[in-house]
Amino acid sequence: MTTTHAYAAQSPTTPLAPFDLTHRALRDHDLAIDVMFCGVCHSDLHMARNEWGVTQYPIVPGHEIVGRVTRVGPEVTRYKVGDLVGVGCMVDSCRTCVNCRDGLEQYCNNGFTGTYNDPDRQDGKRTTGGYSTDMVVDEAFTLRVPENLDPAGVAPLLCAGITTYSPLKEWGVKAGMKVGIVGLGGLGHMGVKLAHAMGAHVVLFTTSPSKIDDAKRLGADEVVVSKNPDEFKPHVNTFDFILNTVAAKHNLDPFMELLKRDGTMALVGLPDSPHPSPSVGNLIFKRRRLAGSLIGGIAETQEMLDFCAEHNIVSDIEMISIDQINEAYERMLKSDVKYRFVIDSKSLRK
Amino acid sequence: MTTTHAYAAQSPTTPLAPFDLTHRALRDHDLAIDVMFCGVCHSDLHMARNEWGVTQYPIVPGHEIVGRVTRVGPEVTRYKVGDLVGVGCMVDSCRTCVNCRDGLEQYCNNGFTGTYNDPDRQDGKRTTGGYSTDMVVDEAFTLRVPENLDPAGVAPLLCAGITTYSPLKEWGVKAGMKVGIVGLGGLGHMGVKLAHAMGAHVVLFTTSPSKIDDAKRLGADEVVVSKNPDEFKPHVNTFDFILNTVAAKHNLDPFMELLKRDGTMALVGLPDSPHPSPSVGNLIFKRRRLAGSLIGGIAETQEMLDFCAEHNIVSDIEMISIDQINEAYERMLKSDVKYRFVIDSKSLRK
Repeated sequence: MTTTHAYAAQSPTTPLAPFDLTHRALRDHDLAIDVMFCGVCHSDLHMARNEWGVTQYPIVPGHEIVGRVTRVGPEVTRYKVGDLVGVGCMVDSCRTCVNCRDGLEQYCNNGFTGTYNDPDRQDGKRTTGGYSTDMVVDEAFTLRVPENLDPAGVAPLLCAGITTYSPLKEWGVKAGMKVGIVGLGGLGHMGVKLAHAMGAHVVLFTTSPSKIDDAKRLGADEVVVSKNPDEFKPHVNTFDFILNTVAAKHNLDPFMELLKRDGTMALVGLPDSPHPSPSVGNLIFKRRRLAGSLIGGIAETQEMLDFCAEHNIVSDIEMISIDQINEAYERMLKSDVKYRFVIDSKSLRK
Repeated sequence: MTTTHAYAAQSPTTPLAPFDLTHRALRDHDLAIDVMFCGVCHSDLHMARNEWGVTQYPIVPGHEIVGRVTRVGPEVTRYKVGDLVGVGCMVDSCRTCVNCRDGLEQYCNNGFTGTYNDPDRQDGKRTTGGYSTDMVVDEAFTLRVPENLDPAGVAPLLCAGITTYSPLKEWGVKAGMKVGIVGLGGLGHMGVKLAHAMGAHVVLFTTSPSKIDDAKRLGADEVVVSKNPDEFKPHVNTFDFILNTVAAKHNLDPFMELLKRDGTMALVGLPDSPHPSPSVGNLIFKRRRLAGSLIGGIAETQEMLDFCAEHNIVSDIEMISIDQINEAYERMLKSDVKYRFVIDSKSLRK
């Protein structure tokens, strides 16, 4: 067994700091993976600070992981040493419930095993994430990373990418459709890129006029500054689908009104306090639908990576070394990142 | 021109009382219909009392109408004198927008013409409803009523029936599905009958333990008394679809939690004040959907009537004469009706 160098929080109020750990010996279907890059997701911060009340310390966050296979368990069939692979938000699930059988492990009726902070289904040991030099993960929850993409930009695809790709696919986004993306952060900027690549007419909604140019560069056909109610009017009853990436509490009605008959707005952000109650009239009078969506299944995540390879899509990132992680959290709180921090894991190997 | 005997409200606070009017001369596609029966919908009361703030007085309510054709305009092709016909909530729409072209006139982007209280699209005269001896209606908004059903019990199908049939069909209810119906009133009792006839396993949710036996007689396989949270627990994550007919403000979350992954709850009742804001987590963690639905299109209403003829379904009604209408309104406010008042239109012909 070798020592893994990681960064962990030891309490809700302590900054992340170096922490060594030892991974389990490889099981039959396990891969050992040398981490190359790990994206920094807002939920890493929520979990490190126990803002959802479920954190067990020490916690090693990170679930947007790209690396190379260094060892394989005796029964591994899908990967070999040297393969470029990814790990996202899940490392296991019950594999037997209807949702797992449908390839939608994120909705596992028995609860999926998160990449960090969850008890392993066999030994009960808490999982640790990608802010570390290496990982041990079952091949069934490992993705093949296309070699033609920048691997640092791929890392955020494993959470931000799939979280936006999955609802776009579920609600059938394709050429000829008008699609709204609400919010231009880590998720929203991926939503714009992906919906654009799917051929949709993409309208980005942002509260920041300063983001108009960037949104268009990323693939938005139009930008609506959502602080100006007048800008909504020409869009009423015109959208096939709206992907709402904003977790902050906000009024959903101005967006619901933009949907055509039978249109759906899918929420992927979980607000700290409830949004104002959405108008039932908006739902009834055009048979509109308000939905939610959670990351994506393993097969779908592979499909998303292959789609990104085909369309040459990665996340816009800002690379950091691990000793900048606490500063990165503070900047993330101010939305001061375009559009995802990614840890260069070399900085852990000193 | 002959005189039509009707009942109208002259102000928000005056009871309905006799009122004579004259219908327009028949246009090319018009039918003159002798009204036999007219159901009493809760929205009649809302409109008579101007509770939605849009009422023009005098108002003649009634949009659950069954009668016989007595005269036809020169271009009428679908009906002949003597045919048994129905009229529901709509008597016209723009007929050109995408929703009208799709046969979903209830979502007309230019606003459908309601059976009462709306300006006629040609002469601007306010439409008057079925609390009257006769009607003049375009054949395109007239339904063929199967002769094998009790015509008095058919009348409520034109609103309560289609309002529940349409979402059950839209969300694909069929044998093998588990379907919830929330509320056992005029709408809910039709929802139970229709979902049962579609072959679903039907669970009725009611706040009144006194309704258990009746719900089972109407076709419910199970009844959950929704005041008892413990009765919800075995049903969590098990419903394919829930049709919520309750207009009163209530907490939607206990019902949302009962939906399987990808399940939908459709609301058909418009609350006076907003429901508590539904949990976003309930939407996200099982990709659930909250939707609305409004009556149904003309073609779909015909399909519903034919379905009812095949399955021998009508509304459970309590027949009244027109001079009991004000008392019926008071009883309706107390939910003291099983399950729909129907006016015997003979009582208008004295």
